[in-house]
Amino acid sequence: MMPDSEKIDPPPQASRTPYVAVVGPGEASTHELRQAEQVGVLLALRRAVILCGGLGGVMEAACKGAALHGGHTVGFLPGRDRAAGNPFLTITLPTGLGELRNGLVVGSADAVIAVGGSWGTLSEISLAMRTGKPTFVLGGWKVDTNAQAAGASSPREVSSAEEAVDGVFAMLGI
Amino acid sequence: MMPDSEKIDPPPQASRTPYVAVVGPGEASTHELRQAEQVGVLLALRRAVILCGGLGGVMEAACKGAALHGGHTVGFLPGRDRAAGNPFLTITLPTGLGELRNGLVVGSADAVIAVGGSWGTLSEISLAMRTGKPTFVLGGWKVDTNAQAAGASSPREVSSAEEAVDGVFAMLGI
Amino acid sequence: MMPDSEKIDPPPQASRTPYVAVVGPGEASTHELRQAEQVGVLLALRRAVILCGGLGGVMEAACKGAALHGGHTVGFLPGRDRAAGNPFLTITLPTGLGELRNGLVVGSADAVIAVGGSWGTLSEISLAMRTGKPTFVLGGWKVDTNAQAAGASSPREVSSAEEAVDGVFAMLGI
Amino acid sequence: MMPDSEKIDPPPQASRTPYVAVVGPGEASTHELRQAEQVGVLLALRRAVILCGGLGGVMEAACKGAALHGGHTVGFLPGRDRAAGNPFLTITLPTGLGELRNGLVVGSADAVIAVGGSWGTLSEISLAMRTGKPTFVLGGWKVDTNAQAAGASSPREVSSAEEAVDGVFAMLGI
Repeated sequence: MMPDSEKIDPPPQASRTPYVAVVGPGEASTHELRQAEQVGVLLALRRAVILCGGLGGVMEAACKGAALHGGHTVGFLPGRDRAAGNPFLTITLPTGLGELRNGLVVGSADAVIAVGGSWGTLSEISLAMRTGKPTFVLGGWKVDTNAQAAGASSPREVSSAEEAVDGVFAMLGI
Repeated sequence: MMPDSEKIDPPPQASRTPYVAVVGPGEASTHELRQAEQVGVLLALRRAVILCGGLGGVMEAACKGAALHGGHTVGFLPGRDRAAGNPFLTITLPTGLGELRNGLVVGSADAVIAVGGSWGTLSEISLAMRTGKPTFVLGGWKVDTNAQAAGASSPREVSSAEEAVDGVFAMLGI
Repeated sequence: MMPDSEKIDPPPQASRTPYVAVVGPGEASTHELRQAEQVGVLLALRRAVILCGGLGGVMEAACKGAALHGGHTVGFLPGRDRAAGNPFLTITLPTGLGELRNGLVVGSADAVIAVGGSWGTLSEISLAMRTGKPTFVLGGWKVDTNAQAAGASSPREVSSAEEAVDGVFAMLGI
Repeated sequence: MMPDSEKIDPPPQASRTPYVAVVGPGEASTHELRQAEQVGVLLALRRAVILCGGLGGVMEAACKGAALHGGHTVGFLPGRDRAAGNPFLTITLPTGLGELRNGLVVGSADAVIAVGGSWGTLSEISLAMRTGKPTFVLGGWKVDTNAQAAGASSPREVSSAEEAVDGVFAMLGI
């Protein structure tokens, strides 16, 4: 029963596994859901871990796409009930933090892909930009700044799942 | 030494004291700083508690305005060093939560006034909208949504400190 | 309306105001409530800010004692409803963090006084010890460690409110 | 590239996967490390997900034991650097929450096994008891309560990894 400590190597891929937050609304259009699912597929094929808010809509679609290809999907739920997570999560974390869990999703990620728009999604895009993470937006919010904020950089708007995922990997240098 | 428990009444104003988050960038224009200071003055005159991120720029200017009139100002610092708070805070809370403290500032408030713009500020505006709090923007970000998000309401853009503070009190029904 | 920026000084006491967390169960004995109230009185007389979990029992008793002498009392509520705070709070913060708010109470304090015991209280004592804060226990938990943990220091057990408050100020060098 | 949405079923085991927090100090005795490793082995064999603080000592030993048998191990790091995680984590989450991440480890778990003792560990045991989660202690802290707290239940002290893991599964009814 006692393992032999000398023989175990760490899983070799772990140190370079990218963690990508896929954020978007719990209620989304058919087009957005298809884009999110494709983002999930592409991230799983490239061995990224998907982080998300754990619920339905864009979150579930991305997890579903990843599940088809053996991807890892982590859901940070706002509440305390693990059963509220979507069925395609491989790890379900009932944080009990409410909307503050958005900060954990983004804060634990190396990059962020937003699909579609909602105020919760925009809070995640903003936090990602605030903390300097590569951020790609597929549809959804356009953020215009006035003169006072003109110096700020912007999230990169993309038009396909491929462009978003390629962009993430290019920015992360993987 | 032992107090007489029977004689103490709660401070009568507490139950209806409005808590207003004043959010904005740590580096701001002279115009923004003057607006933030006026917001602080007006909130203090109307006995609101100001919640903020505790640092400089818009946060400090609002606290300075309030301090002139005996206002209460609470700062949620991102780090663990209380001395990093601006000198006009009456309560300084070193949360150690990093940028996640933005969620506490907004989450603990009844309404939000944003002055000027930054990605951190936009995360606070977004969280306020997400959680249904009255939100007023003085200068700063303009948020345009595309078709998918067209149903979302927007923060109210105002052009003066008076308009922002009057709006908050009108929305709160105080 | 526009304040004169040159004339305002920060409140001079702010930089040396001690912040003391008073922690204890929401249901407590009469003896514990009297001790907590005395702790509140003594802290207010020495111009400390009291941080607490914002609810009843020991938390409310400490706030009540402080209110008698114009003390400042900050309550970090677990939920989102400000009205759940006890009536002697001067600042009421509905964090929405659930039991995680215990970490904020302790993390934002310079020192901790525990009155009576509960598992929630012990989590606060433990976090205070973990982060190296002066910690005083009036009644309540006795924590015995076995051989493996023998090197750990312990919270200081005291037998009166005066001893607890004097101890805090001595440890903080104020 | 577009997946066929109709054909994908959720992974069937997900709904009944137990999540068990393994908590303990970053510096531990050889005996404690062996016990933690065995806990990891046994949890992996029974398909539990291990949640931990992500660092060394007891946390790393438990993850190492699990890694030998293909177990899933999630580490909630206090800081923002993913590279600080131990090499046996399958999911590494740099929360940036400092010691508050202890609350996430416990809050996201169905049950808790503590190996050895430290103040951080005791904060996790206390939070687990506070929130009513099955809690087993292997060595480490003994917590004695005085009269005021006599009604409180206690974590269950066990003397082997098997007893701890069997106890968890019995309590969870799995």
